[in-house]
Amino acid sequence: MGQLRTTRAVIETPTFMPVGSLGPVKGLEPEELQQLGFYLMLNNAYHLYLRPGHKVVAELGGLHAFTGWRGAILTDSGGFQLFSLAKLCEVTDDGVTFQSHIDGSTHFITPETAIEIQEALGADIIMTFDECLPLPASQDAIETSVRRTKLWAERCQASRRRRDQALFGIVQGGLNRDWRVTAARDMVALGLDGYAVGGLSVGESKADMHSMLDVTVPELPEGKPRYLMGVGFPEDLIEGVSRGIDLFDCVIPSRHGRTGSLFTSNGRVVIKQAQYSHDERPIDSNCGCPVCKRYSRAYLHHLFGVKEMLGARLNTIHNLWYFCDFMRRMRMAISRDAFAQFRTEFYRAQGQDISEGRTLPVCNTSVTEGTRQDV
Amino acid sequence: MGQLRTTRAVIETPTFMPVGSLGPVKGLEPEELQQLGFYLMLNNAYHLYLRPGHKVVAELGGLHAFTGWRGAILTDSGGFQLFSLAKLCEVTDDGVTFQSHIDGSTHFITPETAIEIQEALGADIIMTFDECLPLPASQDAIETSVRRTKLWAERCQASRRRRDQALFGIVQGGLNRDWRVTAARDMVALGLDGYAVGGLSVGESKADMHSMLDVTVPELPEGKPRYLMGVGFPEDLIEGVSRGIDLFDCVIPSRHGRTGSLFTSNGRVVIKQAQYSHDERPIDSNCGCPVCKRYSRAYLHHLFGVKEMLGARLNTIHNLWYFCDFMRRMRMAISRDAFAQFRTEFYRAQGQDISEGRTLPVCNTSVTEGTRQDV
Repeated sequence: MGQLRTTRAVIETPTFMPVGSLGPVKGLEPEELQQLGFYLMLNNAYHLYLRPGHKVVAELGGLHAFTGWRGAILTDSGGFQLFSLAKLCEVTDDGVTFQSHIDGSTHFITPETAIEIQEALGADIIMTFDECLPLPASQDAIETSVRRTKLWAERCQASRRRRDQALFGIVQGGLNRDWRVTAARDMVALGLDGYAVGGLSVGESKADMHSMLDVTVPELPEGKPRYLMGVGFPEDLIEGVSRGIDLFDCVIPSRHGRTGSLFTSNGRVVIKQAQYSHDERPIDSNCGCPVCKRYSRAYLHHLFGVKEMLGARLNTIHNLWYFCDFMRRMRMAISRDAFAQFRTEFYRAQGQDISEGRTLPVCNTSVTEGTRQDV
Repeated sequence: MGQLRTTRAVIETPTFMPVGSLGPVKGLEPEELQQLGFYLMLNNAYHLYLRPGHKVVAELGGLHAFTGWRGAILTDSGGFQLFSLAKLCEVTDDGVTFQSHIDGSTHFITPETAIEIQEALGADIIMTFDECLPLPASQDAIETSVRRTKLWAERCQASRRRRDQALFGIVQGGLNRDWRVTAARDMVALGLDGYAVGGLSVGESKADMHSMLDVTVPELPEGKPRYLMGVGFPEDLIEGVSRGIDLFDCVIPSRHGRTGSLFTSNGRVVIKQAQYSHDERPIDSNCGCPVCKRYSRAYLHHLFGVKEMLGARLNTIHNLWYFCDFMRRMRMAISRDAFAQFRTEFYRAQGQDISEGRTLPVCNTSVTEGTRQDV
């Protein structure tokens, strides 16, 4: 267990960041996120650059003033969205030319503009610009991406002006263990404020993800935050933490909430199923969230069936509570030196037995007990 | 000013009921509605009969338990929705055969089943089944509708079993002054708990609406609640109150909220307009609502532009606050004997001068000062 300190919030790690692509986590007010227990969230620089534009946000006092969120914010540099959402993406060492997925307009983003955008948005933690490869990737593509991501990180570091924002680097390297190690060492050599593992959770197997973490995380300094980008499901969070990851972000709790897939201590409740139409129980009788306190599965089933936005909102609140509480319990287990037991019990409650280590690889890095990270 | 007493809430009148067609006001939790100052809301029997079904709601303890709303509920009988939403609607004195607007399934609703449905839903106030005519209507159609609505009200009254629900009758009569008077007298003769004016706000001119109220309301007893169904805009509320109306319901604040049309003390703000993209001011600097306290027009403009459900929610909250506060101020004006001044100032703030009575008809019924209504 550790702490990540920003001027706006002290965040106990390991922690999970909810995602507000365009400002808010869809449907939720900032105060609600804080009441759920979140003090750090992620905003997407790519989305905010396109709408309403980073200059508009800057004129209106930056993201915190614009959205009303009082906790800390991390903005990603836009790399992932560029390669997954934008059309006609052309990459050179100079930067990325792409067409907006909204209106087809052409844009050119360099490492310098990625920093300029993030400085204008005014997050507490910003990310270097990286080239995120789709999988499978050729060895040549991986080599180019690792070299370019290093070059871009250097240019990001050189061009930044604000010193009140932490700058994290991103480790790429596809599914190649050697390139992951090289990429990690490249980033660490820059002496950044934190390090992220990027390019995972893009379609690879769980075993591949774990394998890449196994070689990458040990290269990253223990005293700096280690962030696994775009991950994931509860089991991914456990496996990430067991390999030394401190930070996660993912749209899963909110997106799954909107589509009615609800996380519980015993697995998933798919609320649209007819079996819930008369079910007076809460989503999860072990859950202390405001939704489980007030509403039945039958009501949530009805709201989902009639496409009522309150349903999307309540389901999102429940899922975010689950994720926040899950991380809290993980931190408690770490502090009690009972993480292995926590992990075993989690899988058992989900109907999986990992007592003989058959289902999942055995952890081979220690959890980040005692790490303290000031950014 | 008066009071409407139910077992769950004492409601100061005149009052406005927000509409939760399928349970909740779209996007809002019950507690939020109460925090805004509402103690009485409307649910649509037609919608809830189709989804999730009145029997399901009854099994789950009735609307209050199902939705979590602790205030009072009025359910309409479904008449208006049947004639406006349902397909292939066939009416005889027996009842109405119609096809669901959801799945085309065929249903037959009688006055007796309309009561059965509303008793199962378990609202505090229920409505008689009525035939709501589209305009323009022939004299024959109006005569039939008035006769049938009386017949149906008698059957509703005869078939009801629960005595813990108030039963209100509905006055129809199209735009015919004589038939309105007849219809009002028919209903009053039944000795019901309250009386509604139906069949207005269906496309007629404001002058026609006022004219129908002018002949109808004086026929309704002062000691019973008088309810103008499906109305309306703030100016309609003022004109209704000035003619003796105690209760209103309308989707306007919530629907206009979702479409970004925001009510203010100086008229409407259409939040999608480009002029608001950099506007740091709240929607209405005279407004004390939680949205105006926290968010700028620029942020709401952004949320609307990116179709973020939080925008729909915040706009709905603002509009509902406006309506609730508007009724509160109207009640205060009535209690201070200053309603005429309130009305003049309202129109002046909206840019209309009614000092010489040219814009609107002069009030010719007194407001309901001192009326006390126990239901």
